[in-house]
Amino acid sequence: MNTSLHNFSAGPGILPQSVIEASAQDLINFSGTGLSVIEVSHRGKAFVAVMEEARARVRQLLQLGDDYEVLFLQGGASLQFCMVPYNLLPEQGMAAYLNTGVWATKAIQDARLLGRVEVVGTSEDRNFCYIPREYAIPSDAAYLHITSNNTIFGTEMHAFPESPVPLVCDMSSDIFSRPVDASRFGLIYAGAQKNMGPAGTTLVVVKRELMGKSGRKLPAMLDYAVHSKGDSMHNTPPVFAVLVCMHTLRWIEEMGGLPAMEQRNRAKAEVLYSEIDRNPLFRGTADRPDRSLMNATFVLVDEQHKLTFDAMLADAGISGLEGHRSVGGYRASMYNALPQSSVQVLVDVMQELERKNG
Amino acid sequence: MNTSLHNFSAGPGILPQSVIEASAQDLINFSGTGLSVIEVSHRGKAFVAVMEEARARVRQLLQLGDDYEVLFLQGGASLQFCMVPYNLLPEQGMAAYLNTGVWATKAIQDARLLGRVEVVGTSEDRNFCYIPREYAIPSDAAYLHITSNNTIFGTEMHAFPESPVPLVCDMSSDIFSRPVDASRFGLIYAGAQKNMGPAGTTLVVVKRELMGKSGRKLPAMLDYAVHSKGDSMHNTPPVFAVLVCMHTLRWIEEMGGLPAMEQRNRAKAEVLYSEIDRNPLFRGTADRPDRSLMNATFVLVDEQHKLTFDAMLADAGISGLEGHRSVGGYRASMYNALPQSSVQVLVDVMQELERKNG
Repeated sequence: MNTSLHNFSAGPGILPQSVIEASAQDLINFSGTGLSVIEVSHRGKAFVAVMEEARARVRQLLQLGDDYEVLFLQGGASLQFCMVPYNLLPEQGMAAYLNTGVWATKAIQDARLLGRVEVVGTSEDRNFCYIPREYAIPSDAAYLHITSNNTIFGTEMHAFPESPVPLVCDMSSDIFSRPVDASRFGLIYAGAQKNMGPAGTTLVVVKRELMGKSGRKLPAMLDYAVHSKGDSMHNTPPVFAVLVCMHTLRWIEEMGGLPAMEQRNRAKAEVLYSEIDRNPLFRGTADRPDRSLMNATFVLVDEQHKLTFDAMLADAGISGLEGHRSVGGYRASMYNALPQSSVQVLVDVMQELERKNG
Repeated sequence: MNTSLHNFSAGPGILPQSVIEASAQDLINFSGTGLSVIEVSHRGKAFVAVMEEARARVRQLLQLGDDYEVLFLQGGASLQFCMVPYNLLPEQGMAAYLNTGVWATKAIQDARLLGRVEVVGTSEDRNFCYIPREYAIPSDAAYLHITSNNTIFGTEMHAFPESPVPLVCDMSSDIFSRPVDASRFGLIYAGAQKNMGPAGTTLVVVKRELMGKSGRKLPAMLDYAVHSKGDSMHNTPPVFAVLVCMHTLRWIEEMGGLPAMEQRNRAKAEVLYSEIDRNPLFRGTADRPDRSLMNATFVLVDEQHKLTFDAMLADAGISGLEGHRSVGGYRASMYNALPQSSVQVLVDVMQELERKNG
């Protein structure tokens, strides 16, 4: 990426330039084979090493014990919306869900097809601009499903509930953005295309004791136990997507690991949210305590500035800032790879707009 | 790929060098955006154009009418093993399957979990070395499932059955290798990683009238109708895999389309099978009328030559020739992108082995 470009895309999102370059190199000549990584056997030593390194790095970053399995699957987080209940929810059982946005709603819809669902809390009443806090978790639920970061609405869980039942978390848009105590979760899943790699693979971290326990007879590809038995290669894996994830996970470690990611991300968010709060032309849309470090959503107080502001953003090389249609306005996605300098360029444009309209 | 390397990998398999290079270029700077194709929104104009070109090229190569939908999904052909019955087999219905190998067997296993299955024919009696011919297709079947090419066993259907019920075909390993009358099929699916692109996307061509007809309530990601409604982007698609497919489909057309592919593939197969039949040191494993143009399986008549032959293959820059464990020996995969010259190098090595042991 050209350093005069500032990529705030919500996902697929920005990746480290060194990761893009290493991946392009492997696309031309993989691991000294003279062949492309996408035209060699996934069962060959060279690619098996990639898959194993990617899995091992996840294990290390999340400090997972042997009681957890790590899988790189396909189908996005969306396929997990049904795989979670297929694998964890017995036909006569009940699952608890916290509804914090569009993706949680989709997860609930799929689960309802497969069993009984209890929505323990929802922030739908105010267009999902906050994270519900006061809710009871039924102790007879097979699991509680939460969404740690809500890309569309710009909210993020800064604390996770104490749960008497296994906690299942869709971490698609904030995985590896901060240290997390993974041992509190029964299952974590994440589409790769925000903080981890390209679209086309989904990370699943699952406690071994939860696999194969729903009592359902599952087709092979929908069964975590089958993927586990196949060391995440029951069938041909999405080779290139896993390779890019491996390079990104290496980069995270080189940069100082999850504590360093959190520090970078906090610094970026602090700069942007301060400007949103200070600048009279803008207003944030998410409740302050629940603001996401990954996706900052904000609107122009007066829509008449829109054309001017959009033109200024384009001139500054800023892309991917348009908000989701269900919130409107703007959304600045500040994934791990976004440099602080890009946030500064955005803030400069916001301040210039203010000066022009002072 | 270096021209002194000869990639006979069974899959992921060889792709055209120009496709690899164009894809690497898009990985660095996509469509003039200055960003990588894997870090921009899949809803942006530039990527939507890629998805639409890929779908349109499939439509053109297979001469599909508006009564067919074209989808690029995830999960490999393996996920189709369950998606086909979920979508096409009513809970009280019956599906017919022809068992021609390992993959057909897996498709049957998944279908059996979801409904009644009748296996109308099988070549299991002789380790799948032929395609069954005499079988009856029950007219009350929801569909007949066949596998056009059996990568592991080196067999291929050179004619398709006249079927009174919708024909469903797993074409993973020979799609786009020859002209096919697609109008004879209700559904065609193919993992990309042989003739079409990298692992990570699966082509599904389905007659619209077959979608949403099983009466089952399906999770969104398992429902063809949902993917159709979303123009193959219900959720974030496997962006890079679809991009490489688009480049490969362009290349097929530039090379003269499916008739030219068939001519190339017949010429390569002719040279190799002639040598297998002529050379007293080797023996083909598939019945001659059913030999695959894509995967030629053969063994050494005398295993004592194995170490020598393997060393000679390596010296000649030949890779990916080891046979699948269930057949043993060798398997030469000659997908579209494999040049005739690579086959000649293999034949030269086979002849040299004969001279050494004459």
